[in-house]
Amino acid sequence: MGRESFILKKIVQKHHLNGILFWGLENIRYLCGFTGSDGVLWVSAEEKVFLSDFRYEEQARQEVQNAERRTYRQKIEGVAQFLRGRSVKRLGFESSAISFENYQRLREKLPRVGFIPLNREIQRLRACKASEELEKIRRAVQIASRSFQDIEGRFRPGVPERDLADLLEWRMKRRGGEGPAFPTIVASGDRAALPHGRPSEKRMQNGETVIVDFGARFQGYHSDETVTLILGRPSIEQRRIYDTVRRAQERALRTIRPGAKVREIDGAARGVIERAGYGRFFGHGTGHGVGLAIHEEPILSPRGQGRIEEGMVFTVEPGIYLPGRGGVRLEELVVVTASGFERLTGLSKELSDNIRFRPGGPEF
Amino acid sequence: MGRESFILKKIVQKHHLNGILFWGLENIRYLCGFTGSDGVLWVSAEEKVFLSDFRYEEQARQEVQNAERRTYRQKIEGVAQFLRGRSVKRLGFESSAISFENYQRLREKLPRVGFIPLNREIQRLRACKASEELEKIRRAVQIASRSFQDIEGRFRPGVPERDLADLLEWRMKRRGGEGPAFPTIVASGDRAALPHGRPSEKRMQNGETVIVDFGARFQGYHSDETVTLILGRPSIEQRRIYDTVRRAQERALRTIRPGAKVREIDGAARGVIERAGYGRFFGHGTGHGVGLAIHEEPILSPRGQGRIEEGMVFTVEPGIYLPGRGGVRLEELVVVTASGFERLTGLSKELSDNIRFRPGGPEF
Repeated sequence: MGRESFILKKIVQKHHLNGILFWGLENIRYLCGFTGSDGVLWVSAEEKVFLSDFRYEEQARQEVQNAERRTYRQKIEGVAQFLRGRSVKRLGFESSAISFENYQRLREKLPRVGFIPLNREIQRLRACKASEELEKIRRAVQIASRSFQDIEGRFRPGVPERDLADLLEWRMKRRGGEGPAFPTIVASGDRAALPHGRPSEKRMQNGETVIVDFGARFQGYHSDETVTLILGRPSIEQRRIYDTVRRAQERALRTIRPGAKVREIDGAARGVIERAGYGRFFGHGTGHGVGLAIHEEPILSPRGQGRIEEGMVFTVEPGIYLPGRGGVRLEELVVVTASGFERLTGLSKELSDNIRFRPGGPEF
Repeated sequence: MGRESFILKKIVQKHHLNGILFWGLENIRYLCGFTGSDGVLWVSAEEKVFLSDFRYEEQARQEVQNAERRTYRQKIEGVAQFLRGRSVKRLGFESSAISFENYQRLREKLPRVGFIPLNREIQRLRACKASEELEKIRRAVQIASRSFQDIEGRFRPGVPERDLADLLEWRMKRRGGEGPAFPTIVASGDRAALPHGRPSEKRMQNGETVIVDFGARFQGYHSDETVTLILGRPSIEQRRIYDTVRRAQERALRTIRPGAKVREIDGAARGVIERAGYGRFFGHGTGHGVGLAIHEEPILSPRGQGRIEEGMVFTVEPGIYLPGRGGVRLEELVVVTASGFERLTGLSKELSDNIRFRPGGPEF
């Protein structure tokens, strides 16, 4: 990968930095391969050095590539000492990944250093995926959707939400996933009105919508997909909101091409939902980037900035949530291609494919 | 609970604050009951207000207790607007829970407000557990140790580390845990020399030590315990390091009583390991507090500050890691009582109970 070196060099030059201190684990993994849970990475025009403590010495030796390795005894003091040794005057740092507390402690130890916070520039570093990255995301999607298919017959009245969430996570692991991409959501009935509802002991009931939002992690990369099932014959209102969300999603997808504004994509979905009269029941953004982090650039929201580019991978997930009654969310993961987009997720979002149980009829 | 109100009042008075802005999810849950993954809590002498966005409106309505609720559209602007409305002049904030980026953005919107970082004082807020909290930790321990017992017969040569880690996590969920307290560690052979080694596809072999470090989460509270199994007849070196770690742990446990310095407890374990000649192979601290977070106050390390108090819950987990060869770690979770301590974890740490397979002999 040479793209990120180029971006980093640009950032270093623009801000006249001696180098950049990476504090966030995703960027550290991205830039040097370390997959552990503590450490920092120093990148300058001349060198790349990974620093961590004793606990990760062995792991760093096995994983870190294209970077030197150092071990510190105590993080803040170790990093300060390292930077002093390099006579750093202007230090770029990942300002959204370091706590104010650690920033302040580091700063106290380096009183003559200028600290230059880097956020958006750094956030976008990983936004466009290389082909190896895309391959891992595809694998994560595959693991997740096959796992869903393994158990979809079990979504029926009387089954607790949690049992299915646990089962889905278990299947994803058995199919080679490192774990769930995030805590799996299975939210039924009025709980489907909680956009981030966690699976509970509540049993699914006939007549309810069930939001199933899940993903797998494969070699650090995530997938993310949401289906909404309807148990029993859909009511008129359920059909209406399902159909509205579906149209919102399709409309948003059609706007995706290199150069489109993130706001335009969000606006396309939002417009459909607003015109159907459900605007105030769609309170979140239309999508977010997915990669080594489950939420990353680009962010597709009404206040989102910038444009999408070829190689970006993000979700398109409009929803309608009616407090006390229920909700519908449909989510696809897509990659931007030269001429438009490719859908990475593949489970059907057709209403007819997502009706799971008809009383008096055959069970699906 | 009145203890934390008292502590907070003291902090507010000491720093002449209008109030404290909580940004960390554990403290927010602790103080108002919200279990979701985004939001802030404002606490002043007069009021307690929980703020979050649309996604958590329903959940906040169901969960938040003893606090008012507000919804913002955009976090930083919403919080700033709220604080402006209260004419805040001196704002205490949780400096280890907010990123530098968010701190800076909030500060730009509130140019006349004095920002007072609070760290240690706030960190210690949750250190002493109330009886309801202790009950939840006990439940988490019980779920975890029974789950381990469910599967301990499966630790034998030829089985991949990951299969057992997955199985253990699955059992913990089935036994009522919300999930693992942290990614379960099953590390065998030379991988047991990685203090934070993650389970891999590596198959356990006869003659290896296997570190199993695991815990469950129950109603937000965590457990944490480590056993080291030996597959086959222990070598002289394995016996020696196991025995050394065991003695280090017992020595550390004996120092626990209200008023003991955290450094003293760490030093007790470290001394035993150093005298046995393995000092440089024990690179981490002896223990850490456990509660709503898996790592919290008190921190038992050579540089740790302060003394332990009745009601604190923490781990005692010395280890010896021989690079390329293997390692042993033994971990108990304890609560400090009026006169000493009580062990919360109960799996045997006797070497003879942890030899899992004897070639030619019966399988355990």
